[in-house]
Amino acid sequence: MYRELREQCYELNMQLADSGLIKQTFGNVSIADRGRGVMAIKPSGVKYSELKAADIPVLSLEDGRPVEGTARPSSDTPTHLVLYRAFPNIGGVVHTHSTFATAWAQAAYDVPLWGTTHADSMSVPIPCTDFMEDERIKGDYEIETGNQIVNTFTGRKLDPAEVQMVLVAGHGPFTWGKTGQAALDNAIILEELCKMAYLTKMLHPDNPPLKQTLVRKHYERKHGANAYYGQK
Amino acid sequence: MYRELREQCYELNMQLADSGLIKQTFGNVSIADRGRGVMAIKPSGVKYSELKAADIPVLSLEDGRPVEGTARPSSDTPTHLVLYRAFPNIGGVVHTHSTFATAWAQAAYDVPLWGTTHADSMSVPIPCTDFMEDERIKGDYEIETGNQIVNTFTGRKLDPAEVQMVLVAGHGPFTWGKTGQAALDNAIILEELCKMAYLTKMLHPDNPPLKQTLVRKHYERKHGANAYYGQK
Amino acid sequence: MYRELREQCYELNMQLADSGLIKQTFGNVSIADRGRGVMAIKPSGVKYSELKAADIPVLSLEDGRPVEGTARPSSDTPTHLVLYRAFPNIGGVVHTHSTFATAWAQAAYDVPLWGTTHADSMSVPIPCTDFMEDERIKGDYEIETGNQIVNTFTGRKLDPAEVQMVLVAGHGPFTWGKTGQAALDNAIILEELCKMAYLTKMLHPDNPPLKQTLVRKHYERKHGANAYYGQK
Amino acid sequence: MYRELREQCYELNMQLADSGLIKQTFGNVSIADRGRGVMAIKPSGVKYSELKAADIPVLSLEDGRPVEGTARPSSDTPTHLVLYRAFPNIGGVVHTHSTFATAWAQAAYDVPLWGTTHADSMSVPIPCTDFMEDERIKGDYEIETGNQIVNTFTGRKLDPAEVQMVLVAGHGPFTWGKTGQAALDNAIILEELCKMAYLTKMLHPDNPPLKQTLVRKHYERKHGANAYYGQK
Repeated sequence: MYRELREQCYELNMQLADSGLIKQTFGNVSIADRGRGVMAIKPSGVKYSELKAADIPVLSLEDGRPVEGTARPSSDTPTHLVLYRAFPNIGGVVHTHSTFATAWAQAAYDVPLWGTTHADSMSVPIPCTDFMEDERIKGDYEIETGNQIVNTFTGRKLDPAEVQMVLVAGHGPFTWGKTGQAALDNAIILEELCKMAYLTKMLHPDNPPLKQTLVRKHYERKHGANAYYGQK
Repeated sequence: MYRELREQCYELNMQLADSGLIKQTFGNVSIADRGRGVMAIKPSGVKYSELKAADIPVLSLEDGRPVEGTARPSSDTPTHLVLYRAFPNIGGVVHTHSTFATAWAQAAYDVPLWGTTHADSMSVPIPCTDFMEDERIKGDYEIETGNQIVNTFTGRKLDPAEVQMVLVAGHGPFTWGKTGQAALDNAIILEELCKMAYLTKMLHPDNPPLKQTLVRKHYERKHGANAYYGQK
Repeated sequence: MYRELREQCYELNMQLADSGLIKQTFGNVSIADRGRGVMAIKPSGVKYSELKAADIPVLSLEDGRPVEGTARPSSDTPTHLVLYRAFPNIGGVVHTHSTFATAWAQAAYDVPLWGTTHADSMSVPIPCTDFMEDERIKGDYEIETGNQIVNTFTGRKLDPAEVQMVLVAGHGPFTWGKTGQAALDNAIILEELCKMAYLTKMLHPDNPPLKQTLVRKHYERKHGANAYYGQK
Repeated sequence: MYRELREQCYELNMQLADSGLIKQTFGNVSIADRGRGVMAIKPSGVKYSELKAADIPVLSLEDGRPVEGTARPSSDTPTHLVLYRAFPNIGGVVHTHSTFATAWAQAAYDVPLWGTTHADSMSVPIPCTDFMEDERIKGDYEIETGNQIVNTFTGRKLDPAEVQMVLVAGHGPFTWGKTGQAALDNAIILEELCKMAYLTKMLHPDNPPLKQTLVRKHYERKHGANAYYGQK
């Protein structure tokens, strides 16, 4: 029934494997079919070299129950589900442990907005959540990881349609987008922004933030009402 | 009418994609046909994997109006046009957000001349422009980016025939050359010089500039009146 | 007699060569056949491009004597033998000089536990041994390298079933696992953990250790009694 | 007459191009045929993608005059000739501007001996020459580069049969060996040692040198009278 969705999910997971962002099984892509109320996600702990489209499980977005496929879904599935429910316009979620993004997450730092490459994607620093409280870690940890992300966006009044990426403190990045492809593109962009910011910090530890006029100009020319970047 | 120019421009953009200097759509190559008063440039926001020679737009060097092709040209087109007009001997321009060059641009530092690899290309540090003033950012931003580069060269009395690269503060690098291939080679050289200078700064933060005799020797043996590098 | 064992050992050594972890001949994989009391290991100083399955020597786990094959085994063979004897449940050992792991070993630092990528593998820092005493270096050096590792585990009460990797001070990493494939996967994971920790230390030199609740959660969900990661 | 020598030189230059050590035309390999008193070397400024065996020039080791081939030899040819004359047992020389080695050369630092990977090749730090005096730069610069290397070895009582690599201050590395292949292997090893030492210095700026017992053990087991590394 969900053959096309599973194949698309498989293709995106294989693209992720080819992107150089992940080692071993450290990452997963999910995509949602909002019309049918389901999502497809990488199965847990399966090596990319052994992954097949037929292994991709499909779950209900509403309650997370299996809809198609017998493989156990990624252990991060509850985090993906929280994001799909809280951010109703997203169609894909990607989780990686990409190297530079994870280093910033381990240092629990927001990634400063130091250049137009960053402003081409968003007009604020890349947020890093707080460390999770002990009770939540001991509770439904993967659900709480999703809540932690959502609360960070609510608390800081960030718009998930603008800021399509986050670092979870001590853990690593999640990205999303209108489609699975957009979420994957954001995972690649995030890693590059984190690498550029790392190098900038090493060159100039007290580097001031990029001036707001430049931030607005770059963000607006790509995403504003009068955007003139791209083919329409 | 401009089939060969467009194909050459397409080939150079694909070389750029293969060079590892760019992620996603973060870069573009243009080439000029001075005799016919036109330039060809990558279309805006098109992924390299989907780019075709037939998509390459051709524009008038004089007024930027479309001459052939229906795709919208790169949003950086006005910057390229300013450079072609101000530097009449160049035949190609490349813009990237390559990682180490962008980090130096984000720190808004000139890249010090610390070695003969650098002196093989030019006899001065790689210049980084000042940050643009707010009124200019809010005006014709891409034209002003070109002006910023040209003013940096005029203000510092730099010769664009010698110094074929620049960092735009908070943004990233532009390179040029007699041909599109030379401009692309310079983009690769720039990134490598920025990486070497980064590592040198980490090893020795107060590293003194390379002695002038050594700078002159390397620059002259490749570019001077009695150059003896290469096959003629 | 041991054709399958030698072919498997050959395949794993070629995987190691393809992994990017090693340069030249700097590394080796061994695997044990506990039932038959033997191990197979890369021959000493042979380039991977020239390695053949028929070159793989097989030795007795008990006394290290050659059982099959005429090539001289890796000079690190005595270290592998000590590990197989001291850690009776392991089936493979990998030694590399992978770049970031070797840098931590050269600095003689334990690798701090700063993130869940690390906690997914083990619940403690990656141990680095002390520098070996002069008499032991001048004695049976390769045996003593194995003893140094085993003593580090005994002295710190580490469980080699949990901590499947170690840095030898001034030298480089050894990893192991239930199988040769697991040992190789651990070599890849170790290098990535060392790279992430390096970047984290550069970003935040005084970074505090990851909180214990988060460490336990990630370690237990993958390796605990109620583990729910993977397909069973 | 020298077809085999030129083809071998061509193959080694292409291996260098594939090694990732060089960008553009920044590097060259030469090999000597001592019996016939000649050397073959890469032609000057030719891109590797356009290089052919038939382009490789052959020169007299005694006086540097062309023996076969019409292409102009590398501008670094006089440096190679000085090394072949001063170090009579070497059969190949490689010059690169490999990134980490060049960074150490730009900082004009010897590369400290911090690990057994380094001691597997030599028992002392990798030497960096002094900066060349102005009169010598203005004289026969490439000959003086060779003299600078030879004088560094004489002045520090280094044996070129043990230490098969050097950094020229402000410039970059030269390596050599009994054969062209050995010289190329040394170029790869040098870059890796420089990367490991860079990372070690970042982790531990005051890292003490590796203890001499460990240095001797590793150096002797590979190169001493009773060496037991390799297949004989």
